[in-house]
Amino acid sequence: MTTKADKSCVIIGAGDATGAAIGRAFAREGFAACLSRRPRHSEALEALAQSIRADGGEAHALPVDARDESAMIALFEEIERDIAPVEVAVFNIGANVNFPITEMTARVYQKVWEMACFAGFLMGREAARVMTKRERGTIIFTGATASIRGGIGYAAFAGAKHGLRALAQSMARELGPKNIHVAHVIIDGMIGSDFIRQIHPDANAARAEDTILSPDEIAKNYVWLHNQPRSAWTHELDLRPWKENW
Amino acid sequence: MTTKADKSCVIIGAGDATGAAIGRAFAREGFAACLSRRPRHSEALEALAQSIRADGGEAHALPVDARDESAMIALFEEIERDIAPVEVAVFNIGANVNFPITEMTARVYQKVWEMACFAGFLMGREAARVMTKRERGTIIFTGATASIRGGIGYAAFAGAKHGLRALAQSMARELGPKNIHVAHVIIDGMIGSDFIRQIHPDANAARAEDTILSPDEIAKNYVWLHNQPRSAWTHELDLRPWKENW
Amino acid sequence: MTTKADKSCVIIGAGDATGAAIGRAFAREGFAACLSRRPRHSEALEALAQSIRADGGEAHALPVDARDESAMIALFEEIERDIAPVEVAVFNIGANVNFPITEMTARVYQKVWEMACFAGFLMGREAARVMTKRERGTIIFTGATASIRGGIGYAAFAGAKHGLRALAQSMARELGPKNIHVAHVIIDGMIGSDFIRQIHPDANAARAEDTILSPDEIAKNYVWLHNQPRSAWTHELDLRPWKENW
Amino acid sequence: MTTKADKSCVIIGAGDATGAAIGRAFAREGFAACLSRRPRHSEALEALAQSIRADGGEAHALPVDARDESAMIALFEEIERDIAPVEVAVFNIGANVNFPITEMTARVYQKVWEMACFAGFLMGREAARVMTKRERGTIIFTGATASIRGGIGYAAFAGAKHGLRALAQSMARELGPKNIHVAHVIIDGMIGSDFIRQIHPDANAARAEDTILSPDEIAKNYVWLHNQPRSAWTHELDLRPWKENW
Repeated sequence: MTTKADKSCVIIGAGDATGAAIGRAFAREGFAACLSRRPRHSEALEALAQSIRADGGEAHALPVDARDESAMIALFEEIERDIAPVEVAVFNIGANVNFPITEMTARVYQKVWEMACFAGFLMGREAARVMTKRERGTIIFTGATASIRGGIGYAAFAGAKHGLRALAQSMARELGPKNIHVAHVIIDGMIGSDFIRQIHPDANAARAEDTILSPDEIAKNYVWLHNQPRSAWTHELDLRPWKENW
Repeated sequence: MTTKADKSCVIIGAGDATGAAIGRAFAREGFAACLSRRPRHSEALEALAQSIRADGGEAHALPVDARDESAMIALFEEIERDIAPVEVAVFNIGANVNFPITEMTARVYQKVWEMACFAGFLMGREAARVMTKRERGTIIFTGATASIRGGIGYAAFAGAKHGLRALAQSMARELGPKNIHVAHVIIDGMIGSDFIRQIHPDANAARAEDTILSPDEIAKNYVWLHNQPRSAWTHELDLRPWKENW
Repeated sequence: MTTKADKSCVIIGAGDATGAAIGRAFAREGFAACLSRRPRHSEALEALAQSIRADGGEAHALPVDARDESAMIALFEEIERDIAPVEVAVFNIGANVNFPITEMTARVYQKVWEMACFAGFLMGREAARVMTKRERGTIIFTGATASIRGGIGYAAFAGAKHGLRALAQSMARELGPKNIHVAHVIIDGMIGSDFIRQIHPDANAARAEDTILSPDEIAKNYVWLHNQPRSAWTHELDLRPWKENW
Repeated sequence: MTTKADKSCVIIGAGDATGAAIGRAFAREGFAACLSRRPRHSEALEALAQSIRADGGEAHALPVDARDESAMIALFEEIERDIAPVEVAVFNIGANVNFPITEMTARVYQKVWEMACFAGFLMGREAARVMTKRERGTIIFTGATASIRGGIGYAAFAGAKHGLRALAQSMARELGPKNIHVAHVIIDGMIGSDFIRQIHPDANAARAEDTILSPDEIAKNYVWLHNQPRSAWTHELDLRPWKENW
């Protein structure tokens, strides 16, 4: 594998609109974008990497099951050895499901947590391991309204998101003094993904009116967080469209 | 199994000072105290049940691994069939560990969640299943300061406790209108257990001065929550000793 | 003025359903209920005091403008001198208004704060002054959903209620170790007052169904808070009817 | 008064390090910096304006007592008439005092609120009045840790800051859909002002190590908030130095 960037940005959950936009944004900043999502989406992941490369950026498609500890460890080893030191790590896996509590299966409850919280722990720990050695780096976790509020049917999703926020906050308090910036972004509103545009008849109108979140604008805030100098770091910020009812 | 009470109170995590005190308190209120903790503590559990019976209450030692879905389902079936309808369910398992993030093993992170959050989901769901049929009941989850705040080394514990709080809040919003009272108690401070009194040289002095939490006083608040009429239900309250620095 | 109780409970804002119910509840516990509201409601206040006395309790109608520092100081002096030591002080003045921000007058914004926050400070400070000397007592502030959440048109009301909550929390941290219990009660939902029953056609039905808050049940929680022994004090709890959508 | 910028940024509280840095930052972005603080600091205010002009920016020293409704109204009228439309308004007055609750005078409690909350309401309302007509603009309020947490001795300061946060949140919910971006910045840590460098022997070392907040870096975040497009607005973010213990 040949590489030219001297720093990499790992994105776990580079499958949806937001993860892809974050990959593009960091590639434009001179990072090797290390894009990861589940192996069954390998083709889409490779297509994303190619489109970033076509724009002159560096990008690598690195499919893994993010819930698999060995796979996560191997992913960081590969990037550090073959690509470039991990300067930024972004966790962006969602798992939004809704069931009445009596109908929530243990399997779903556990799987939502594994995807949206446990995988975040695995990424966060591996990122911390390489970053604490160098005493530098940025780790960003994507949150949601469910990160700070439970709701009817959201026991699993809110549980995972609350857990991820506790992880981010605990890591920020521990790693800040080691010069590692840990941030948590609460995204509140519908995101203008291709999927949303397919299933939601008004999505294009909403996009024209800016009433759904633009993935590219979300991504700019992740880059902003990374670029904050350490005398004034943000741990948590929210992002929502102007007309959102909250 | 012979029984006389017409309602039962399940306590998952009846092992420490708090769980035992909650069992005693509900037994005094006329409930069949259905005490549960891990099978390897069966003897201590039986001793607790006997001491409640010696005081004239009804108590049953029902050891289960609370992380085991089938075991939790079977536990509720047994209680409903052989003892008395579950009117109150209390989840009281803690799992307080502290590790630097880089040294936290995936096994520990997962186990803490399984004990302090997933088992709470299993109990909550089984309680909801029997209570929604009757449209009555109270479900109480024990929280901690870590339920609302991450801290250095507490990624696992705070993550599990945050997740449990999201579960409690989601269930409360859903089940309140079905006449089921779901509450979350944030316990902030050292609890005056036998264990604490062994390892902590000042614990007896602290107890004499009320500067550690009295399990019996904690338990009274659980009974109070259950007894609130539905025109004024509390979802969340905190409990701490008067001299606590918070 | 003749008196028989050996302890008094001051209620600032004894005008609405909740304040009156709190007065009755503490009178039943053996307190001299020292009821206060604005002088222009002196007749209603006296009627409330008489009805408590008719039930065998001790009650005093003590109208003051709670925003007037000298009047608040004089009120506590009078009670301490002529009635009985202040063991409990409850602040219960609301001031719920709603205006678009551009139409909110400075006069309204300031008045809402004076009634719902500044008067709370005056009461809290005077209570602290007499209680710290004796190293005992309970101070309870009535909050609302607006205490923890701003809303459209609620800049003044939420501002005052947020400020009152900050007061309660600051006082609790300072006065707890001096054996003074400071609590904050978040009341979330419509309260079943006479006024509500007049203007709200469904209020009687709601009351029958417990879907509005019962003032008497609210009051019982205030008494409960006062009776908590200091090894397990609650600083904050919420109260809402079972069917409330929150 | 001659002017060249086509938009203005009002800063209420342009006296300390942060306010001055915000003024400089928006002037560099092409805004007429309309700097305001109390009349008794008129000379320092004029010196700040001159130093911005010396750097090629536009700046106006406009001393007012921000607690005076008429003065605040007149200030906005003057800026709109003589300088340029108000596109950004920043409220940056602090009033950090600490007293035991029993020693807090009513005068101090009220004055802290007038400076740190009521003046914020006056500015926020006047900004909303001119911005809603044009359906554009950004309003930013400076918060502190006391905005979200009471503390011993901080009843007045935390009360005012909590109230200001409730104002910001209420305004954001109301004015967002009118295309006006309202944000609240929680500053957590010591700020590297000249004053701090005089009284704090280690301040220069701290500054060299980035362990106190850089006013210029804080200011960049205010500009960032203003520049966020409306499809992804932040309402609240925190800022703290990397080594801060929180």
